[in-house]
Amino acid sequence: MNKETTLSLLCDFYELTMSRGYFAAGMTDQIAYFDVFFRTVPDGGGYAIAAGLEQIAEYVRDLHFDDSDMEYLRSKELFDEDFLAYLKTFRFTGDIWAMPEGTVIFPGEPIMTVRAPLIEAQLIETYVLLQINHQSMIATKASRIVRAADGRAVSEFGSRRAHGESAAVLGARAAYIAGCAGTACALSDKLYGVPAGGTMAHSWVQTFDNEYDAFSTYCRLYPDSPTLLVDTYNVLKSGIPNAIRAVKDVLWPMGKKKCAIRLDSGDITYLTRKARAMLDEAGLSNCKIVVSNSLDEHIITQILRQGAQVDAFGVGERLITSASTPVFGAVYKLAAIEKDGVYTPKIKVSENTAKITNPGFKNVYRLYSRDSGKAEADLLTLRDEVVDDSGSIELFDPQHTWKRKVLEDFTARELLVPIFLGGECVYDFPTLEQIRENCRREIDSMWGEVLRFENPHNYYVDLSQKLWDLKHEMLRSRRNEL
Amino acid sequence: MNKETTLSLLCDFYELTMSRGYFAAGMTDQIAYFDVFFRTVPDGGGYAIAAGLEQIAEYVRDLHFDDSDMEYLRSKELFDEDFLAYLKTFRFTGDIWAMPEGTVIFPGEPIMTVRAPLIEAQLIETYVLLQINHQSMIATKASRIVRAADGRAVSEFGSRRAHGESAAVLGARAAYIAGCAGTACALSDKLYGVPAGGTMAHSWVQTFDNEYDAFSTYCRLYPDSPTLLVDTYNVLKSGIPNAIRAVKDVLWPMGKKKCAIRLDSGDITYLTRKARAMLDEAGLSNCKIVVSNSLDEHIITQILRQGAQVDAFGVGERLITSASTPVFGAVYKLAAIEKDGVYTPKIKVSENTAKITNPGFKNVYRLYSRDSGKAEADLLTLRDEVVDDSGSIELFDPQHTWKRKVLEDFTARELLVPIFLGGECVYDFPTLEQIRENCRREIDSMWGEVLRFENPHNYYVDLSQKLWDLKHEMLRSRRNEL
Repeated sequence: MNKETTLSLLCDFYELTMSRGYFAAGMTDQIAYFDVFFRTVPDGGGYAIAAGLEQIAEYVRDLHFDDSDMEYLRSKELFDEDFLAYLKTFRFTGDIWAMPEGTVIFPGEPIMTVRAPLIEAQLIETYVLLQINHQSMIATKASRIVRAADGRAVSEFGSRRAHGESAAVLGARAAYIAGCAGTACALSDKLYGVPAGGTMAHSWVQTFDNEYDAFSTYCRLYPDSPTLLVDTYNVLKSGIPNAIRAVKDVLWPMGKKKCAIRLDSGDITYLTRKARAMLDEAGLSNCKIVVSNSLDEHIITQILRQGAQVDAFGVGERLITSASTPVFGAVYKLAAIEKDGVYTPKIKVSENTAKITNPGFKNVYRLYSRDSGKAEADLLTLRDEVVDDSGSIELFDPQHTWKRKVLEDFTARELLVPIFLGGECVYDFPTLEQIRENCRREIDSMWGEVLRFENPHNYYVDLSQKLWDLKHEMLRSRRNEL
Repeated sequence: MNKETTLSLLCDFYELTMSRGYFAAGMTDQIAYFDVFFRTVPDGGGYAIAAGLEQIAEYVRDLHFDDSDMEYLRSKELFDEDFLAYLKTFRFTGDIWAMPEGTVIFPGEPIMTVRAPLIEAQLIETYVLLQINHQSMIATKASRIVRAADGRAVSEFGSRRAHGESAAVLGARAAYIAGCAGTACALSDKLYGVPAGGTMAHSWVQTFDNEYDAFSTYCRLYPDSPTLLVDTYNVLKSGIPNAIRAVKDVLWPMGKKKCAIRLDSGDITYLTRKARAMLDEAGLSNCKIVVSNSLDEHIITQILRQGAQVDAFGVGERLITSASTPVFGAVYKLAAIEKDGVYTPKIKVSENTAKITNPGFKNVYRLYSRDSGKAEADLLTLRDEVVDDSGSIELFDPQHTWKRKVLEDFTARELLVPIFLGGECVYDFPTLEQIRENCRREIDSMWGEVLRFENPHNYYVDLSQKLWDLKHEMLRSRRNEL
C-alpha cells in the first residue's frame, strides 16, 4: 500500500452512509458513547494485552478529508454537497478514555470508551477496531511465546509472512511491547525503535563455493558476534564443524569470543543437544545456539522440556499472524446516547446471551490485594460511582449472582485514562520502552493461575450492583416490549 | 503505520548485513537467480491464486534509500561509509519474470523469478514474499468462498479484523481479484477501485427511539436500494415486520421496489427461510436477503444445502485473515549464480525432501488439452528448452518416475512473463477488472477435480527430463561430498 493518502477513508462504507444519514436527519448534535471490548481470549488463554492506542491517537488527531477523499466521495453519487461540506471541515471533537498499551485486559470490559458527536464516534469505529484487534492479538500471542521461552530471548522474524506492510511493522512493535527482545524488520526499528537484528540466510551460504568460505568471510566482516546458519547442507556433518573452524581461524586470532550458530530446520531437541556437545568439546562454550522454524509457545515448551539446548529463539509466521487464533474479536458497541442534554443508556440484546452488552457510561477498576500486590478482580461500575478501597467490598458473579466474595484490604486502580478531551489529545504518550516495562509489570501483577496457557483460572470481571441493576432492568423492559 | 517513509527498509535486517557482506567481499558483480514458489495449498485445497505483483512492481520501481533511511542505517554502527555510499545511489537494475495476477498456481513451481546482481536480488526478498504471501493467501481463500456461494454475490466485510491497514486495503483488492463482488473498505475503493458498499450497523438502529423509525428514516434517505439490518432486537418478531412496514410506508409510495434485509446473527438457515416466507407473503418478493456473521466456504456450503434463502453474503474475519490457514508459505530460493560470466545452478538440500529446490534458470509451461481447453499439467523446464506442442509429450512424476503419461493434441503456454528487464519495468499492467477477468478464466480452465474443496485431484507439476537430470546429478554429487 505504497500510495500517498490520508487514512480517513480506512472505514467501512456504512460509517459514511450512516453519517450522512445522521447529518441529513439533523442528528449531528447527539452525543454517543461507544465501548470497545473483546469477548474471548485467543488460544484459550486467561488474559490478553492491550496494544495499538498510539496509532489510534495519531489517526484521530490527523482525521480529516482532503481533496482526493472528497473527490472519491463525490464520485459515489450518494452524498449531497451539504454533507460533503460538513466533512470538509470535519475534525474529531470528542473524548476518548482507554487502557494504556501493555495493560493486561479481560473479556467484557471496556478497553476504550469514546464519547463524541454521533458521526465522529461512528467514523472512527473501523480504524479503532482494526488497530486494537491487530496489535492486541500480536501482543497477546507474543506474551505467551515469551513466557514459554522462560527467560531466553525471543526475536520476531515473521515479516515475510505478515499480512501486508503494516502487519509486519506494527506486528513487530506489538511483539516487542509484550516482551520480545527485537525483530528482524528494519523498518519497525527505523519507525518505532524496535531493535532489529539478523545475520545470514541460506542464500549467503549457497553463494560461496563452500560453507567454510561463507562462514569465515562472515566472521571477518562481522567479528563482534556473528551468528552462523549451520543447516544449509548438513548440520552435524558440515555446518557445525565448519562453524567451529571459522570461529577458531578468524575470531580467535582477533581475540573475539562472542558468536552463535542458528538452526532453522530438523529436530531441534536432538540437533541442539548434539551441537552443544560438539561446541563445548571444541572449546566454544561461549557460542550461543539460536533456533527458528515454525515455533510457537507449545513447541518451545515441549523442546525445552525435552532438554533442547537453546539460548535464543527466532519466531516467525506463527507469531506475526497469531496463526492459531488469527482473529482478535474486539467490537465497538453503543453504550449510551445524549440527546438535548438527556442521557439514555443503551443495550444490545441478543439471543446469544454472551453478546448482550453492558449499558451506560462506565468505569473499570482493578482491585489488588494489598498483601500480595496481585490483581484479584476487575469491577465495572457506572461512571458516577466511586470505589472506596478503605474498607471491604462484596463482589458477585454477574451470571450466577449467588456466587459472592468479600474482598478486604485491597486497593482500587482506575484502568481507563483520558486520551482525548474535547478533541484535544491530553495523553502523555509513554515511550515504547515504557510501554514494554508497563506490560512486564502488568504480567507480574497477575496470579500464575491466570497466566496458564491452558485451562487458566477465569479472572473475575464483575459488575457493580448499580450497573447490574441497570442492565437487568433494561433487559426486563426490552423483553416486555416484544 | 501512518508515518511517511519509503518502504525500502521493509526488509529483514539480514538482507542488509548480507548485502554489506557481499559488497565488502567484492561480490557486487555476481548475478543471482532466485525463484519464488510455495509448498502447500492452504486449507487442503487443490490450487492457489497469484496476487500482489502490482504492488511488488511499484516497490521495485521506487526502491531507493533516502536521507532518513541512511541516517537509520548509520545509527546501527554496522555499515561502513563505502557501503552507505553504494546504497545512496542504489536502484534495481535486474530482471523479473512473474505469473500475472489472477493466475492459478500450484506448489513447487516458480511464480516469480528474479535475476539480478546479488545485493539487489537479496534486498527485495522480504517485500516480494510479504506481498505475494499476503495477497495470494487472500485471493485463494476468496476464490473458495466465492465458489461456495455458487453464483451469489460475496462482499468482503473484514477491515476491522484485518492485520493492520494494508491487510484491510490490499486484502480487499485480493478478494476482488478472486471474484468477490466488492468490499466494505472505502479506502480500497478510493485507491484501487474495488467497489465499496454498505448501509447500516446495529448502532444506527439503536440510536433511534425505535426500530421502525431507524428503518423508515433510512429508506427516506436512501430510497434506491436500502439494506435494513433486522437483527438488533428480534429478527422475526420485530426486525422483519418493521422492515416490511418501512418499505411499504416509504419506498412504495415513491414507486421504489428494490430493497434488502441483512441478518448478522442467529441460525441463518432457519431465519432466512422464515424471513423469505414473511417477505413474500407481504408482497416483498423483490426484497433480497443478505447474511453475514463468521461465514466461510464450509458454512456457506452447509446452509445453502439446508435450503437457506440467501441472495448475497457478507464475509468478514474468516476471509480477511484467511482464518483457517493464515499463512501462505511462499519462499525465495537461490536457483543459480553467474560469476565472471560462468553460470552455476544451485540447489538447496534438506533432510526434508519436500524442501529440496529445483536448480537453475527455469521456465513454466501450462499444457492444455486442445479438445477440452482444460489445463492438464504444468511443466518446469530449463530456460533454454522449448516445448514443442505440435506433437505429443511424455510427462512423468518427478518422485515416482515410472508413473508416465503421454499427452497428445495439446497447447503449451509460458506462464512467466517479463516484468522488469535491465531494471526497466516492461510489463503493461492490466486493470483490476482485467485481472479479475483473468482469474475467472483461469478457474474456468481447470478441471472440477482440481477445484474441489477437500481431497482435490493432485494437479501435475512435472519436470522436464533435462531439469530432472540436472537436479538428480546435483543431489548425487552433493551426497558424495558429505
